[in-house]
Amino acid sequence: MNEQNFVAALRSIATHRAARGLADDAAALELNGETLVVTHDAMVEGRHWLPGQDMADVAWKLVAVNLSDLAAKGAEPLGVLIGHTLGDGDARFIEGLREVLETYGVPLLGGDTVGGHGARTLGCTALGRASRCPVPSRAGAQPGDRVYVTGTLGLAMLGFEALRDRTGADSTAYRRPAPRLAEGRALAPIVTAMMDISDGLLLDAWRLAEASGVTLAIDGNDVPVADAARRRECLSWGDDYELLFTAPAAMALPLEPYYIGTVRPWMEAPLVLDGEPFSQAKGLGYQHG
Amino acid sequence: MNEQNFVAALRSIATHRAARGLADDAAALELNGETLVVTHDAMVEGRHWLPGQDMADVAWKLVAVNLSDLAAKGAEPLGVLIGHTLGDGDARFIEGLREVLETYGVPLLGGDTVGGHGARTLGCTALGRASRCPVPSRAGAQPGDRVYVTGTLGLAMLGFEALRDRTGADSTAYRRPAPRLAEGRALAPIVTAMMDISDGLLLDAWRLAEASGVTLAIDGNDVPVADAARRRECLSWGDDYELLFTAPAAMALPLEPYYIGTVRPWMEAPLVLDGEPFSQAKGLGYQHG
Repeated sequence: MNEQNFVAALRSIATHRAARGLADDAAALELNGETLVVTHDAMVEGRHWLPGQDMADVAWKLVAVNLSDLAAKGAEPLGVLIGHTLGDGDARFIEGLREVLETYGVPLLGGDTVGGHGARTLGCTALGRASRCPVPSRAGAQPGDRVYVTGTLGLAMLGFEALRDRTGADSTAYRRPAPRLAEGRALAPIVTAMMDISDGLLLDAWRLAEASGVTLAIDGNDVPVADAARRRECLSWGDDYELLFTAPAAMALPLEPYYIGTVRPWMEAPLVLDGEPFSQAKGLGYQHG
Repeated sequence: MNEQNFVAALRSIATHRAARGLADDAAALELNGETLVVTHDAMVEGRHWLPGQDMADVAWKLVAVNLSDLAAKGAEPLGVLIGHTLGDGDARFIEGLREVLETYGVPLLGGDTVGGHGARTLGCTALGRASRCPVPSRAGAQPGDRVYVTGTLGLAMLGFEALRDRTGADSTAYRRPAPRLAEGRALAPIVTAMMDISDGLLLDAWRLAEASGVTLAIDGNDVPVADAARRRECLSWGDDYELLFTAPAAMALPLEPYYIGTVRPWMEAPLVLDGEPFSQAKGLGYQHG
């Protein structure tokens, strides 16, 4: 079964409203007046990290991508659980885990450690407490809203290439993404839709538009990119973990994001980039499965 | 790194009190007056399930063992997240997942689906709400308490053998363990210590005793077993997911468990079985890593 079919099948058995977490970044759960946000992301050896990569960086990223899902919900992290498969670099994994948890002040709550062979799969579950209820989703963008992004895209792509080609250039953005936790909490009360950019701006914008039933018109030249000569690649490459959000045009913003487009009523396609409509998601960014 | 060393290293970076979940069945977290219980268990192909086993049963067990961890904390399940690696039997996996979630009335909150090769790793995170705070732990057994178990041990062993040897005998106990959720909730207010038996009675009793700083004296003949001719094997085999607990001798119990021993002040070993002391955990049950 490919991933799309599997997730569709999962969705058919998920009757709970929180199960939108299957498609969305994280699930939200009401608990005694609090809104608990919970997310689980896995990474597979050879697929989500380069062979021979420092396992300290892998641990960092494993936690950071989950914290990024909390950030997109405006949630404050409560803790993480780690599902670890033993293998090379375990001591470095522990070291990277310690660093990322200390950096973001997140407690390690538990997890499971298993032996294995073949490509290792690592999992992380992150729990958070939402500052605003209902939490932001992908589905709330309204025609007339503006589209924003919190930072530069393509840095992870350049970092990946530096690491892969051993150029010695800075690869931090790829190895140690910084979840936008403070930005997410500040933005949550005022956005109409929000998500983190894990699979590339274009694909994630397409998804946000589709979930909201609107069209996002993006001006590619307004998007801050790490390499202007490779602008389109920067818009398609994932792993930057900036936040993509929409907000009413008149809304005062608590930080200074980049204004990259507008939300329009549904037209022929979810995404319009520099006037060109994209009706299919295929080819826009990183596709799983 | 072996599992023991890895977990010891993890523990060194886990400063939060909830991090006892690293060793214990599940972590407890206070949230606005509620006690949230969270646990993550993984299963590895060829290690936690037989080659060719029906993936519907694997899905059932993946969820059930996590619910069993909630049961040991007296917690009511709030939902699960599934980390799935795609492969053979995905449709059956979905079917088993649907069955176990419906059976226990547990919503699917989310998760992640990844491609992979080699032995697959599946993960499950379960969230629950505790009925009693602080939640039961392994560490509270007091000298003078009685030791109890909620049901018969060795059924999973017989089920495993039936499945492995294709005898046609009933293998349900191995394939589809039943987490003792109702029993756990009923017992939580009155136990001094509680855990689920995943790695065999003797090993888990040894662990509970060591965590509590006491000695558990167990009378092997008082333990209900599935095959009296193989009593010692039934006491050492895991996967039964009954609850092991201690309670004051005078305490009225809300159900009728089996009274299998007594808690004594720390003697020369954590476990005494029929008068024989066991100072080492090695050889008592299923050892990971």
